[in-house]
Amino acid sequence: MRHSHPELQKPKPLPKNGLRVVGLGGLGEIGRNMTVFEYQGKLLIVDCGVLFPEEHQPGIDVILPDFSWIRDRLDAIVGVVLTHGHEDHIGGVPYLLRERADIPLIGSRLTLALIKEKLKEHRIRPELREVAEGDELDLGPFSTEFLAVNHSIPDGLAVAIRTGAGLVLHTGDFKMDQFPLDQRITDLRGFARLADEGVDLFLVDSTNAEVPGFTTSERDLAPAIQKVFRDAPRRVIVSSFASHVHRIQQVLDAAHQHGRKVAFVGRSMVRNMGVAQDLGYLDVPPNLVVPLHELEKLPPNKATLICTGSQGEPMAALSRMANRDHKIRVAEGDTVLMASSVIPGNENAISNVINGLTRWGAHVVHKGNAKVHVSGHASAGELVYCYNIIEPRNVMPVHGEWRHLRANADLAISTGIDPDHVVIAEDGVVVDLVDGHAKITGKVAAGNVYVDAQTVGGATEATLQDRRTLAEEGVVTVLVIVDADTGLLADRPEFLVRGFVHQDGAFDPAEPIIERTLARAASEGIADAHQLEQMLTRDIGRWSHKTFRRSPLIISIVIDA
Amino acid sequence: MRHSHPELQKPKPLPKNGLRVVGLGGLGEIGRNMTVFEYQGKLLIVDCGVLFPEEHQPGIDVILPDFSWIRDRLDAIVGVVLTHGHEDHIGGVPYLLRERADIPLIGSRLTLALIKEKLKEHRIRPELREVAEGDELDLGPFSTEFLAVNHSIPDGLAVAIRTGAGLVLHTGDFKMDQFPLDQRITDLRGFARLADEGVDLFLVDSTNAEVPGFTTSERDLAPAIQKVFRDAPRRVIVSSFASHVHRIQQVLDAAHQHGRKVAFVGRSMVRNMGVAQDLGYLDVPPNLVVPLHELEKLPPNKATLICTGSQGEPMAALSRMANRDHKIRVAEGDTVLMASSVIPGNENAISNVINGLTRWGAHVVHKGNAKVHVSGHASAGELVYCYNIIEPRNVMPVHGEWRHLRANADLAISTGIDPDHVVIAEDGVVVDLVDGHAKITGKVAAGNVYVDAQTVGGATEATLQDRRTLAEEGVVTVLVIVDADTGLLADRPEFLVRGFVHQDGAFDPAEPIIERTLARAASEGIADAHQLEQMLTRDIGRWSHKTFRRSPLIISIVIDA
Repeated sequence: MRHSHPELQKPKPLPKNGLRVVGLGGLGEIGRNMTVFEYQGKLLIVDCGVLFPEEHQPGIDVILPDFSWIRDRLDAIVGVVLTHGHEDHIGGVPYLLRERADIPLIGSRLTLALIKEKLKEHRIRPELREVAEGDELDLGPFSTEFLAVNHSIPDGLAVAIRTGAGLVLHTGDFKMDQFPLDQRITDLRGFARLADEGVDLFLVDSTNAEVPGFTTSERDLAPAIQKVFRDAPRRVIVSSFASHVHRIQQVLDAAHQHGRKVAFVGRSMVRNMGVAQDLGYLDVPPNLVVPLHELEKLPPNKATLICTGSQGEPMAALSRMANRDHKIRVAEGDTVLMASSVIPGNENAISNVINGLTRWGAHVVHKGNAKVHVSGHASAGELVYCYNIIEPRNVMPVHGEWRHLRANADLAISTGIDPDHVVIAEDGVVVDLVDGHAKITGKVAAGNVYVDAQTVGGATEATLQDRRTLAEEGVVTVLVIVDADTGLLADRPEFLVRGFVHQDGAFDPAEPIIERTLARAASEGIADAHQLEQMLTRDIGRWSHKTFRRSPLIISIVIDA
Repeated sequence: MRHSHPELQKPKPLPKNGLRVVGLGGLGEIGRNMTVFEYQGKLLIVDCGVLFPEEHQPGIDVILPDFSWIRDRLDAIVGVVLTHGHEDHIGGVPYLLRERADIPLIGSRLTLALIKEKLKEHRIRPELREVAEGDELDLGPFSTEFLAVNHSIPDGLAVAIRTGAGLVLHTGDFKMDQFPLDQRITDLRGFARLADEGVDLFLVDSTNAEVPGFTTSERDLAPAIQKVFRDAPRRVIVSSFASHVHRIQQVLDAAHQHGRKVAFVGRSMVRNMGVAQDLGYLDVPPNLVVPLHELEKLPPNKATLICTGSQGEPMAALSRMANRDHKIRVAEGDTVLMASSVIPGNENAISNVINGLTRWGAHVVHKGNAKVHVSGHASAGELVYCYNIIEPRNVMPVHGEWRHLRANADLAISTGIDPDHVVIAEDGVVVDLVDGHAKITGKVAAGNVYVDAQTVGGATEATLQDRRTLAEEGVVTVLVIVDADTGLLADRPEFLVRGFVHQDGAFDPAEPIIERTLARAASEGIADAHQLEQMLTRDIGRWSHKTFRRSPLIISIVIDA
């Protein structure tokens, strides 16, 4: 197995018959999936998503892939294929279209409906090309073909890409539920047909590669959902992802069977379910769904609410109910069904919501105590089926942290694929498919681009470093008024302390440090305010660390009296 | 079931024949367990632990229980019973002893050895009273009796407390492993004997009350641990809690069987294993454990390292190995065994360690892909056994967040205990056992006491609020030099921006805001610098929010020219 090394350099020019593959996101992380294919000077992009920040990235809204490698070749882009409508696959599109608005977007009906809604908020009218499973479409030198895949949102597509360099198959996010609610299974027969032709490079979802066995069918959640509706003495409040149409379908069906009405709560839930119903992906029995104000007039045992906030997002409906900050007041006897995953990093937030709801008397059913969630991704067993039916010449695991990419690579190798043809590439690593062999040939820029307060890239790693210091240690502003003639203190220094543990007067003992620093500067003939500020910041910082074992951010201001 | 309400007030005086129970920690959270019993003017304390901070508490070292309710009655404390040696049960002791150094500490041999080591660092020489299962000890008006319980550290004790108000049984942390490595099972026969006498109040560990069934035996980890040693081609690196003597015993045994030597890495691991071995809790075959520098001379397939860092702590050995910041350089073919739980909140840190180790080529075995961890707490099935054998008159779930306390209360009720005799109390809630009935009668102070830098309580909720703002939004220092005569700007204002997304010059357009504020102040005759600073901070803050949709911390400094 080949994998990328830190010392990788800018790649050499691509041979004429070669296909270049660069993941600008999703390789080494769960999120901001984006793969760029280059062939004969043209670029085809598969997905363009966002990554959500971790706790060491405070204040950040979302993280984008770094577009700098393609920025001076925007005109060479023949299209962006969107495999499905999740944020980590489409969320970056508005930012890419800001750079060139008429890049064609290719995707299934639901996917395009969702990206269109999103782009409306950004006031962008995109150029859309709808495709369905079985369709073929030439995009510059790339001949694409689309295959149905099953995932936690309807209408997902894998994409096969044919060029002179060979046949590539990119799964997008997928699993192989054999009994999906919409009967639309992952097209393993299509995969087999491609295998007969010969798949030269297989890019495959790694999210669940560490999970042994097979992902349970969505249908197997029915008993637990039914039980909730059978047992609930009062209201049923359901939270789920606003894009999980099939999960919500199951809830709607159960509510209907048990003679309850349903109201949707939360902007994205209302919007997405409207889109899904209009396009026929959600089958809503007549008169089942009512506006919230009508639902509130019904007896509690006739009411079902379906709301956002399954990840404990503080501003979403469910968190606000848990904090009694929502007009829906959870009470003793209510049942809350959290029919969703726990995305890593959200555990505490979700647990706080469960605690809050329980405290108001609700009975909370969640994946920790009932079978109310299944993953949207193929587990190890399913991936092995894919490798065995496709027998690809080269494998490049995508969509995962290092551990997932590595586990997926190991699975490929375990089915007999030559380890020398399995590449683990991180974001920005260049993989060239030349003469039937995929090899790592270099690396391009692929850092984090932060969206923060209406800016793209305004926050940098240095900003975040400052923020982490501010959070952990606080800030001390030091105002030093200097006698312009002597260079010494003209007045007592002033210390303004925030977020630092020692408050009033804690820094007063640092006055001699300041005197000493100024005296040294004076003796060395240093009078420049900026230079003095740097010296003071350093010396006060040292004193603080010695005195308090803490290193707050020190902001020194020197002014002449 | 009774539970506490926000409107609870200071309790009335305790009737003469009554026993008062106040949890100052551990009720509504996992950590800082501390229960205070009051009888006839005397106080008996069970445990005094610390709580580890969450991400919204940046910079905090640990959180202590609030001692203010007992602070003016320190002389009334007859002793602190320590049920076992975990930090969340003993970590607060040094801070309590700072208030009164000669409070007797009562506990088992291992527990006392561990607290003694800890107090050495604080230069406190405690008054210790060793007890063992079966022992009885009178502490003022409290007659105590100790019973063996099984947990994830050896030598745990439950405590029965007899007073004129009745018989109380407090489990401490426990589970009911029927095949523990040391054959020391939880003394269910003793529980039954107390039940015959009549248990008036049962305080019981809620940590795993939501988990159905029975906690697997520690012994059942042997196959997975054996497999690691059988298959590992090169070094085996094991991380675990430094107090989990039995887990480490299993690793030592496996290493020994497979002809490997072992070195301990990390200060707390070396120290605790020394204590455990000296006292006979850890059985180390001769010549098995060697110093690290000797281990490094052996062939990799003869070497085992046992180290700290199972929770992804950035300064611990395992994280540093993952970041190539440790002299032990993890390499292709090494096997890392993370034989430990994932404490909620640590998921991302642990996953980052797994990714880092995998990236260097290690094969990482963890609870997500092998049976290498079992919990130290009784699951629902075990708790039900306890309720049925003890048939307590009153139940008070302890050790848990709201969801866990509630689940435990529901279990008690499901076994037939009168819901009116099951109390869910949060930290500080006063429960009085009077005439055989435990009732909530009030609430005392029980806030968070933060240990930060070298202070106790120096950081407050306001400090943390500032820190969160600093982290999310950054800080802007505004220097405004005012003409003393006119009250207007004497010079251009200076903006120093840190941790804020918009850097250079972003605030320059706020100059007219400052001019306007100063003009208004001048017209109203406001010249006090402090008052001006408040006005400027407010107006610049508003401008910032309007302009950037962000609210950095604004520090205004006004000086006269």
